[in-house]
Amino acid sequence: MEFKDNDPYLIIAADSHAGLPTEQYRPYLETKFHGAFDDFLAEHEAMIEASNKMGVRDDAYAKKWFEDHEEDLAGGWDGIKRDQALDSDGVCAEVVYPDADAVESRTAVPFGAGLGLSGDLDPVLGLAGAKAHNRWLADLCSVSPERRCGVALVPITGEVEEALAEIRWAKEHGLGAVMIPARWCNQTPYHDRRYDPVWALCEEYDMPIVTHSGSAPREEYGDHLGIYVTEVTWWPARPMWFMLWSGVFERFPKLKFCATEGGCWWLPQLLWFWDRLWAGQKGSEKLGKGAFKGVVEMLPSEYIDRNCFTGLANVKRRELGQRYEIGIQNMLWGTDFPHPEGTWPNTHEWLKKTFHDIPIDETRVMLGLSAADAFGFDLEKLRPLSEKIGPTPTDLGQLTESRTAADLTARWAPVKEVGRHWLTDNDFPLIPQ
Amino acid sequence: MEFKDNDPYLIIAADSHAGLPTEQYRPYLETKFHGAFDDFLAEHEAMIEASNKMGVRDDAYAKKWFEDHEEDLAGGWDGIKRDQALDSDGVCAEVVYPDADAVESRTAVPFGAGLGLSGDLDPVLGLAGAKAHNRWLADLCSVSPERRCGVALVPITGEVEEALAEIRWAKEHGLGAVMIPARWCNQTPYHDRRYDPVWALCEEYDMPIVTHSGSAPREEYGDHLGIYVTEVTWWPARPMWFMLWSGVFERFPKLKFCATEGGCWWLPQLLWFWDRLWAGQKGSEKLGKGAFKGVVEMLPSEYIDRNCFTGLANVKRRELGQRYEIGIQNMLWGTDFPHPEGTWPNTHEWLKKTFHDIPIDETRVMLGLSAADAFGFDLEKLRPLSEKIGPTPTDLGQLTESRTAADLTARWAPVKEVGRHWLTDNDFPLIPQ
Repeated sequence: MEFKDNDPYLIIAADSHAGLPTEQYRPYLETKFHGAFDDFLAEHEAMIEASNKMGVRDDAYAKKWFEDHEEDLAGGWDGIKRDQALDSDGVCAEVVYPDADAVESRTAVPFGAGLGLSGDLDPVLGLAGAKAHNRWLADLCSVSPERRCGVALVPITGEVEEALAEIRWAKEHGLGAVMIPARWCNQTPYHDRRYDPVWALCEEYDMPIVTHSGSAPREEYGDHLGIYVTEVTWWPARPMWFMLWSGVFERFPKLKFCATEGGCWWLPQLLWFWDRLWAGQKGSEKLGKGAFKGVVEMLPSEYIDRNCFTGLANVKRRELGQRYEIGIQNMLWGTDFPHPEGTWPNTHEWLKKTFHDIPIDETRVMLGLSAADAFGFDLEKLRPLSEKIGPTPTDLGQLTESRTAADLTARWAPVKEVGRHWLTDNDFPLIPQ
Repeated sequence: MEFKDNDPYLIIAADSHAGLPTEQYRPYLETKFHGAFDDFLAEHEAMIEASNKMGVRDDAYAKKWFEDHEEDLAGGWDGIKRDQALDSDGVCAEVVYPDADAVESRTAVPFGAGLGLSGDLDPVLGLAGAKAHNRWLADLCSVSPERRCGVALVPITGEVEEALAEIRWAKEHGLGAVMIPARWCNQTPYHDRRYDPVWALCEEYDMPIVTHSGSAPREEYGDHLGIYVTEVTWWPARPMWFMLWSGVFERFPKLKFCATEGGCWWLPQLLWFWDRLWAGQKGSEKLGKGAFKGVVEMLPSEYIDRNCFTGLANVKRRELGQRYEIGIQNMLWGTDFPHPEGTWPNTHEWLKKTFHDIPIDETRVMLGLSAADAFGFDLEKLRPLSEKIGPTPTDLGQLTESRTAADLTARWAPVKEVGRHWLTDNDFPLIPQ
């Protein structure tokens, strides 16, 4: 699709959230789980109380947040209100993860199967909760379906046949991606061949496998938030290297994987580390040259470019500065709507703050085009909406009276030329020589 | 201590290894463990065989390594030969970790208490193995004690009183640092107050707490080396943020912690991430402003600068390029002697390749002065040896006919001025504006 320099941006949020107020999931749950659901609701309420006591959140902040945004926050589960909130934020489309309420956790998926999806869930109840959310989500996504890629929750660490059945159901009902437990916990890790049927089906359906930050071994953290926040970005990224180094992306070359809301600031050093390891550089000679033959045939960074993405709830300037190492197409903008840690309802302002000096063609890729490619959005259908609601490069301060698109490109050309310095034979790439 | 520009470098290897051929640990083990030791030897041999089958190493490479270096490799356990090997490599002193043989694992500490020290060891046998090594190591370090800081192995995840007793024994017998299990496994994580007596004693004795790469949840990795190598740098660093965020460095301001042979390439992004988290920047508002009050009173990077170090077996150019973010004094050079993935026996060559354009005063800090400070080496005693065996800045290609010490400093001045860009209010620090 062609764009003129100052055409509005077609923005796709690769990270947003939707979920019913928890008690409203009941009609989507099979009747036989209603008793267990009552127990879950009671436990969940107690957990929220305990969280509050632990000081996980700022009460005054929470109160103001809900008062200021009451109408729009209902967009967490109401499709019409949701479209209005997206429109006013300039966002055309979205990849929809669970758990709309990140402040008080009042839209949690039954039985813990939401963002905290992990291998230690009760296999029966976990699947039941996931199914309830998926069925409701399919309804939500039927409102303006061209604007939504719904993320199906699939606890693949349980019975593989059940997971496959749920993925088939999700595909048939218009959902577009498959969220797996970020942590397998006491179940089988993702290098195992038992998951090959899952990868194969997702590749066949072109449904990206996704993880989202949330699950972490909290029982190890005491009441220390800093530990949790440090690690909650690591666990959802972890499946990436389990799949990479066990050859999943070699065996399933069209499979896509996206780690969401864990940032991408950790990726440049890993790519550097992995490519050097693969190439047998200093430190890995004793492993032998053929160590990865037949399993990982290309450079790790080549698999990342081909198969992997990061969903970014508000990319940071530091990350943008490293985008030629990370890979521009690997970086998918997100708003995290309707979470307060995201950019909604001030997305324009955040985009201006973050992208004001980034080349326009690269901005288009990160704000929407790569997400469209990864998650299968129809750009033709979204284009008219973007013309109405999308901010322009002028709006973001990129184009000014004294600066053209070519100026932006020229500014970054030396950094782009260096790219991944370990592959382009550049030394200390970002430092004046 | 004052140095002239071209004075030889006083090199301290913050990472080296020593250990007896395993069966020779028997006389250092209490008699009651000799039966269990026989079982361990048999299991260990079987493990080595299995490792070889898994293709963890290159047989031809291993054969050549042992043939080429037979005499020097005996320096893994012989103090006199060890001094000779260090001398010819230009290294004055060393921080001595266990497990001399990283190729065939034939100098493993009894009962798994060496580099793989972790919380899932049998508490009785693990402590017995650690004690055997510590007793032998005290003997080794009595050869040229001014050149050695022996690292005592202390399984602190077991009984705290026993750990304290062993630390006291280590102090009394001249050992200088305390290696704790990198992973607590099913035992209590390091944020817990149960460890406060350990931190207090190590602070009082000025014995740094250290971890070393080696322990990792291999049972999760299948036979995929890439996963292991990716994660084996993460687990030994993990205690750093458990201690930091739970206020250990606030309560014990003189306690030192050093994570060794995991590189430091992961540290710049963590410092950036942590400082921003602590300061309540975008994304953490909902936690509330006082989230860390009373526990973490300073910026995380301030604790890292005051309390933490990384032991680097061959620092990489990319890491050096980020040294003003990492903190120069936090980066301790190591040779990894006598491991093949380190720089020995070609340390001069590696130093030249790595440091040829780094300012001399900074090089002195990273190659030895900071390690002397952290691990308590007496520079006055080492200086005469460094004058004889240390390479000069000219040897490393830093000083040339056309380049002075001031030239090197001037070249890096703009990067140094930016430093940690998130604290100096610089944007995209390493990119030409």
